[in-house]
Amino acid sequence: MKKATPKEGLILKYTPYNLQLRHVFTLAGSSRSTTPIMLTELQYKGISGYGEASMPPYLGESQSTVAKFLSKLNLNQFTDPFRMDEILEYVDQVAPGNTAAKAAVDIALHDLTGKIAGQPWYKLWGFTPEDTPETSYTIGIDNPEVLKKKTEEAAPYKLIKVKLNGINDTEIIDSIRTVTSKPLCVDVNQGWTNREEALDKVYWLKEKGVVFIEQPLPKERIEDTAWLTHHSPLPVIGDEAVQRLSDVDKSAGVYSGINIKLMKCTGMREAHKMITLARSLGLNVMIGCMTETSCAISAAAQLSPKADWADLDGNLLVSNDPYAGIKIENGKIVLLNKPGIGITKTSIDKRTS
Amino acid sequence: MKKATPKEGLILKYTPYNLQLRHVFTLAGSSRSTTPIMLTELQYKGISGYGEASMPPYLGESQSTVAKFLSKLNLNQFTDPFRMDEILEYVDQVAPGNTAAKAAVDIALHDLTGKIAGQPWYKLWGFTPEDTPETSYTIGIDNPEVLKKKTEEAAPYKLIKVKLNGINDTEIIDSIRTVTSKPLCVDVNQGWTNREEALDKVYWLKEKGVVFIEQPLPKERIEDTAWLTHHSPLPVIGDEAVQRLSDVDKSAGVYSGINIKLMKCTGMREAHKMITLARSLGLNVMIGCMTETSCAISAAAQLSPKADWADLDGNLLVSNDPYAGIKIENGKIVLLNKPGIGITKTSIDKRTS
Repeated sequence: MKKATPKEGLILKYTPYNLQLRHVFTLAGSSRSTTPIMLTELQYKGISGYGEASMPPYLGESQSTVAKFLSKLNLNQFTDPFRMDEILEYVDQVAPGNTAAKAAVDIALHDLTGKIAGQPWYKLWGFTPEDTPETSYTIGIDNPEVLKKKTEEAAPYKLIKVKLNGINDTEIIDSIRTVTSKPLCVDVNQGWTNREEALDKVYWLKEKGVVFIEQPLPKERIEDTAWLTHHSPLPVIGDEAVQRLSDVDKSAGVYSGINIKLMKCTGMREAHKMITLARSLGLNVMIGCMTETSCAISAAAQLSPKADWADLDGNLLVSNDPYAGIKIENGKIVLLNKPGIGITKTSIDKRTS
Repeated sequence: MKKATPKEGLILKYTPYNLQLRHVFTLAGSSRSTTPIMLTELQYKGISGYGEASMPPYLGESQSTVAKFLSKLNLNQFTDPFRMDEILEYVDQVAPGNTAAKAAVDIALHDLTGKIAGQPWYKLWGFTPEDTPETSYTIGIDNPEVLKKKTEEAAPYKLIKVKLNGINDTEIIDSIRTVTSKPLCVDVNQGWTNREEALDKVYWLKEKGVVFIEQPLPKERIEDTAWLTHHSPLPVIGDEAVQRLSDVDKSAGVYSGINIKLMKCTGMREAHKMITLARSLGLNVMIGCMTETSCAISAAAQLSPKADWADLDGNLLVSNDPYAGIKIENGKIVLLNKPGIGITKTSIDKRTS
């Protein structure tokens, strides 16, 4: 009988880390100066793939929930990292929710398999790297003076994403318009309530040079959102309303497009399917992010050639990024011809972890 | 100034070839003993990827139309084979139709890029190789004695696909049932006309151990087909009605599932998208073929882990297959862990080309 040899399976490691934000970040409902994340590493035959979970507190995951989720996984049972369907379906069924924790595994797995194949994922997906969109730079809700200062700091970016809350929207836009004439996009984070008022505001924002509106009404307000989208002179993009693949089909007829974020949809594999589906259904595609390191940002950027808009500035808002990855040149995402998700480690700031 | 060096672009070669069929093959409307094909090769930096176009005469393409189409292509302008979106969008816009000719480029490109990445495409797509379905063996329309003989030759296969024409359906099924009790599937190739009679026949076929019905009514009969699918106790699969990605969305609510064939949909890249879309819309997926060599069959088989049923027997019906690829073991598709589409050249019969 042939002697059984020990299987060489995947080894998962994870380390909590705290991102320091360059600015206190405010959106409809909260403000903060740090974001807790979890850095992951998948090892296989001497090769390491890197991933990350980002846990903005309002989304319900934390370093503790992510550690608890990851500790339940037995990835060592898998001896072929290319069995991505099998591995990620296993991860997905271990517990519901936990989408950022799941993305941390998915991203590391893509980095690993891309490295084994010796190719970046944008190449394995057959995308055209020059098709990457310009990325927007996000400005949180703040007083006029800080808004102006942040807008000036956004000089390298060609599109500015403005957070509105339904309270002092006019003041925010007017402040920004005193210092820049760049195109803007607006993220309301469900902050508006009345659809007719919302439509008036969209018309006003269009006059002010806004190019699209993200999640204007609460995600439950499906009929009102469909009405607004139907009448709106600007594309209306679903964000909070669109988490995973199963939400894409439902978005057709309600939103003009969807904002795909790896931390919502469990990672690159599901995001890739969401793009295929969205495109087939005639929906616009935006790729967004949380506050993240260059790891998750570079992972999302692999998909960005298929997006109409990208909002991949999460790493730019951070002062202690442990990785280097995609670059922004003249406001546009520049993909690196490096295997996997194309990142290199810089130095992890041990004090914050 | 840096001196310009000549670019190393893709080189496309193609050779006509005639497949000899083991049996005269009859379906609703035609019979034949050979199938013209075009073998393609894409060369890049010393690596060759192989592809194929198959042109059953009733579909309108021929060796002459394929050669004419391929001669118009300038693939040498592309210096990175991973730019699959760009390359295949270019190919698609050179002329409408010509789907088999387009597939011949797509398959060769996938074989090439898979070889460069050192991985089979089922792995790059993250599929589970054991999820391949059993493949059906197709029996053309014939007299009872030949039907029985062919059914006996189908011994290694666990599912038999029977062609019906609406004329002597009962006789055909009854003849086959005298020699086997295996599950059958039925391909009507648009041969039925009345929806109520079709439904009666489906109920009768279900009693006879048939598991699904392919293209029962003419493809233009959308409302009647939707009615039949709604009332049918068996899945109703669209084939002639479903050519390309843009047909998938329209199939939801009309058919239970779709039959994806590389020669209809321009190849592996579009087929992969069709599967993602079909799955998201709750449609069954079948992977079918024309009479083809092991090249196009092995290409289609890369996708088969995501299919409910496969009808990838085209190469089994041929006596002069110039390639070796996937195997069938116990009626089930066995994928090879070899880069690209996993084929090797055997010997091309020069007399037939």
